[in-house]
Amino acid sequence: MKINKLLVANRGEIALRVMRTAREMGIKTVAIFSEADRNALHVRYADEAVCVGPAPSSESYLRGDVIIDVCQKLGVDAIHPGYGFLSENANFARQVREAGLIFIGPSPESIEVMGSKLAAKAAVADYDIPMVPGTPSAIDGSASGRAEAKVISAKIGYPILIKASAGGGGKGMRVVEQEADFDEQMDRAVSEAISSFSDGSVFIEKYVTSPRHVEIQVLGDQHGNIIHLFERECSVQRRHQKVVEEAPSAILTPEIREAMGQAAVGVARACNYYGAGTVEFIVDANLNFYFLEMNTRLQVEHPVTELITGVDLVEQMIYIAEGKALTIRQEDLQIKGHAVEIRVYAEDPANNFLPDVGTLETYVRPQGNGVRVDDGFEQGMAIPIYYDPMIAKLITYGDDRAAAIQKMIRAIDEYQISGVQTTLGFCRFVMNHHAFRSGQFDTGFVSQYFTPEVLATQSNAEENELAAVFAAYLLNNQAAKPSQTQAVGPARSKSQWRTKRLG
Amino acid sequence: MKINKLLVANRGEIALRVMRTAREMGIKTVAIFSEADRNALHVRYADEAVCVGPAPSSESYLRGDVIIDVCQKLGVDAIHPGYGFLSENANFARQVREAGLIFIGPSPESIEVMGSKLAAKAAVADYDIPMVPGTPSAIDGSASGRAEAKVISAKIGYPILIKASAGGGGKGMRVVEQEADFDEQMDRAVSEAISSFSDGSVFIEKYVTSPRHVEIQVLGDQHGNIIHLFERECSVQRRHQKVVEEAPSAILTPEIREAMGQAAVGVARACNYYGAGTVEFIVDANLNFYFLEMNTRLQVEHPVTELITGVDLVEQMIYIAEGKALTIRQEDLQIKGHAVEIRVYAEDPANNFLPDVGTLETYVRPQGNGVRVDDGFEQGMAIPIYYDPMIAKLITYGDDRAAAIQKMIRAIDEYQISGVQTTLGFCRFVMNHHAFRSGQFDTGFVSQYFTPEVLATQSNAEENELAAVFAAYLLNNQAAKPSQTQAVGPARSKSQWRTKRLG
Repeated sequence: MKINKLLVANRGEIALRVMRTAREMGIKTVAIFSEADRNALHVRYADEAVCVGPAPSSESYLRGDVIIDVCQKLGVDAIHPGYGFLSENANFARQVREAGLIFIGPSPESIEVMGSKLAAKAAVADYDIPMVPGTPSAIDGSASGRAEAKVISAKIGYPILIKASAGGGGKGMRVVEQEADFDEQMDRAVSEAISSFSDGSVFIEKYVTSPRHVEIQVLGDQHGNIIHLFERECSVQRRHQKVVEEAPSAILTPEIREAMGQAAVGVARACNYYGAGTVEFIVDANLNFYFLEMNTRLQVEHPVTELITGVDLVEQMIYIAEGKALTIRQEDLQIKGHAVEIRVYAEDPANNFLPDVGTLETYVRPQGNGVRVDDGFEQGMAIPIYYDPMIAKLITYGDDRAAAIQKMIRAIDEYQISGVQTTLGFCRFVMNHHAFRSGQFDTGFVSQYFTPEVLATQSNAEENELAAVFAAYLLNNQAAKPSQTQAVGPARSKSQWRTKRLG
Repeated sequence: MKINKLLVANRGEIALRVMRTAREMGIKTVAIFSEADRNALHVRYADEAVCVGPAPSSESYLRGDVIIDVCQKLGVDAIHPGYGFLSENANFARQVREAGLIFIGPSPESIEVMGSKLAAKAAVADYDIPMVPGTPSAIDGSASGRAEAKVISAKIGYPILIKASAGGGGKGMRVVEQEADFDEQMDRAVSEAISSFSDGSVFIEKYVTSPRHVEIQVLGDQHGNIIHLFERECSVQRRHQKVVEEAPSAILTPEIREAMGQAAVGVARACNYYGAGTVEFIVDANLNFYFLEMNTRLQVEHPVTELITGVDLVEQMIYIAEGKALTIRQEDLQIKGHAVEIRVYAEDPANNFLPDVGTLETYVRPQGNGVRVDDGFEQGMAIPIYYDPMIAKLITYGDDRAAAIQKMIRAIDEYQISGVQTTLGFCRFVMNHHAFRSGQFDTGFVSQYFTPEVLATQSNAEENELAAVFAAYLLNNQAAKPSQTQAVGPARSKSQWRTKRLG
């Protein structure tokens, strides 16, 4: 069925990103917004926009009932959920279907299976997918659960990981170095799991040392065709959340890439997947890879895949939702060039990356060949306290990894943001770091290299830079009289003509 | 020789574009500026910037002596001339070389040969390059010159074209439909040629009907290697100047593309060319192609070639100027996807595309996947009356021609400019026009299709649109109270939630 009018049940950069493709496809767009987002860019961009409630997500962006009601009143055919919010809510997907609307994503059944880590592992059991050794099923904090877990932990060898069954974002996750610490960490994990997810079940896994996070993008249609679009490397994380991503990974061999792609297609097949999805793997220092989980939605970092494959993932999602068969065959796909993405958050890297919301007093985007900025803000706008504090995704593309990194450094230097602290300086640090440049890094990058000592050095450098800018500003203003060619004179220092950019 | 510090002898978008690549290559940048450009973006972007004189180009951007002086005082190694200004001035290139600096472009000798249409034709005589039939050498307005020209014109058949030998931009160019009109048109051509170029010599060419302008990008190094990077189609022109370009052309066959590429390499070889250059051809309705001229510099429309080949042309120019051998081989190059560029000029399409300079009261660039904006302005800046009124180049890239055009329409709709008239609406007209979409158009596109009747229709549509925007604005402001989910109510019309973009 042809989609004529699409509602994006999301906000910010991803709402804009989805609507841009919809517009290119000739599809009318409807935005929803909370009261805090009344002046947001995604609202202005849409053909129609409807306020769905007060600022808190639970009263607006998570109100599936209201959103479906909007669709019916405005003659909307389909809902794109973006990421976060209702994107992995099987009940919402089911309600959308029952309301006679198209959910641009997988079936509620696929979402449900992959929404539970243990159900997911059970589903893929027949597909020969490598798994991190661990408990075959969920356990709880009871004495018998602990006893069973300790036997298994001893067998796979410490350190082990206790993970909340319903978890994500590092909540309810604990490393246990030795059996003596087991009970204490188990107590903490269960208690966190209950408070975060109202579900105290956990499971045990081998703790992989020097782990890298590598994920495979898949696309499946409603006719049983499934392809993969290679990997994204997302190992640079802070607070267990990604902040730098790239495609392809610097370390995979063609053979391992192929094996991981096949495994990802197997995972998708195991849950009759259709739409765009991401199969996450953990990769150890010897390039052994283990299935972690499947995200049944568009990923924040999807642009790096778009740049190296030339495929518009949102366009494909829409075609698939319309029931079309995939026209891209696996053998047509090849990696061309290299893409890097950084997430520009309103956070203070010097203060453990805590959110630092406020008003974007200066906001000037970098431009030029091979630079893509996906954002939802413009100068003068405030970053609401209610939502994820991501300002933008900055993505660069080059012939090879070194070129993409150089372009990223240039683009970071060109980005002008003031009014809030951002992760830009931290990301420049990553781009210049020998471990990142060499490709030899893992998910411990931040704790290992972004140390208090490094932070102190950075702060000093910034202060010196500010002092230099101020001195240059004074000199510049003296020299700023119309002075024709005399502006070039041996008596003046070069700093007179220097102009500085904000970082 | 490694270039460490580069001066860009230009302004606006091309100065920024060159400096971005320089920065990615770790090269320090120096901007020059006239008094009118003191606050321009290229000035702020450079590591150093020097005022070289008052606003008129002849007193600043064309002051080669001052520019070379700046280089010597600031320890600059190399000069990139961009396009226009001093970029095709052989004397300047020679002075740069004599001052011990690197001119990022071809040798003065190549510039000189290709700077004269007749010298160029003579130079390529041995290279089997197809030429439009015409006079073998320049003639003047004398009786003997006219007699000779009439014999040749009768032989090749009317209509014929009289062109100024030193011409460009349509000046000193006259179509002669029949011999009876010859003398009158000859008088006009010679007189225009004298007043525009202080050179009354002209030549005669067959007038190609339904001509298309197709050009080939070449790159040559200082070791004799020359490659071509396929074609750009530039047939949509107004006032004999390009306004829409694309790559590849919609009409070339692989065989003709290959033949034109070989011819372009031949032209470059004929003048021992190195650097980036463009060989312009005229193509008739039967895909016969004829050599027109060679531009010995970076072309305005170079980005479309960058997008379909993945080659950064400025980077290649810098490597070549450093004396490096080309690392790209002809057989490595392939066309991937399709790119379209429009030139956003501060001009009034309803008033014969006359410049309409002023202040950019609103200036919001389009964004998103596959959209590149090369510009030199930001909101609030004035477009100086002294220079070319181009505001920006908007370039889109897609899997195929249809996708690139759809993306262009989306990007044009997203571009917000107020304060000056622009060519955006005209370019949207081109993108939606059946002749352009079908690929069946020639350099007569504007006179044939952009008629006064079309203009009248457009104006009416715009007025209606404005009225609708105003009505929506009034409704929106009534509805703009915090109204939670009640904003969705059957009693209200959809237009309440509509928000409009400027065009």
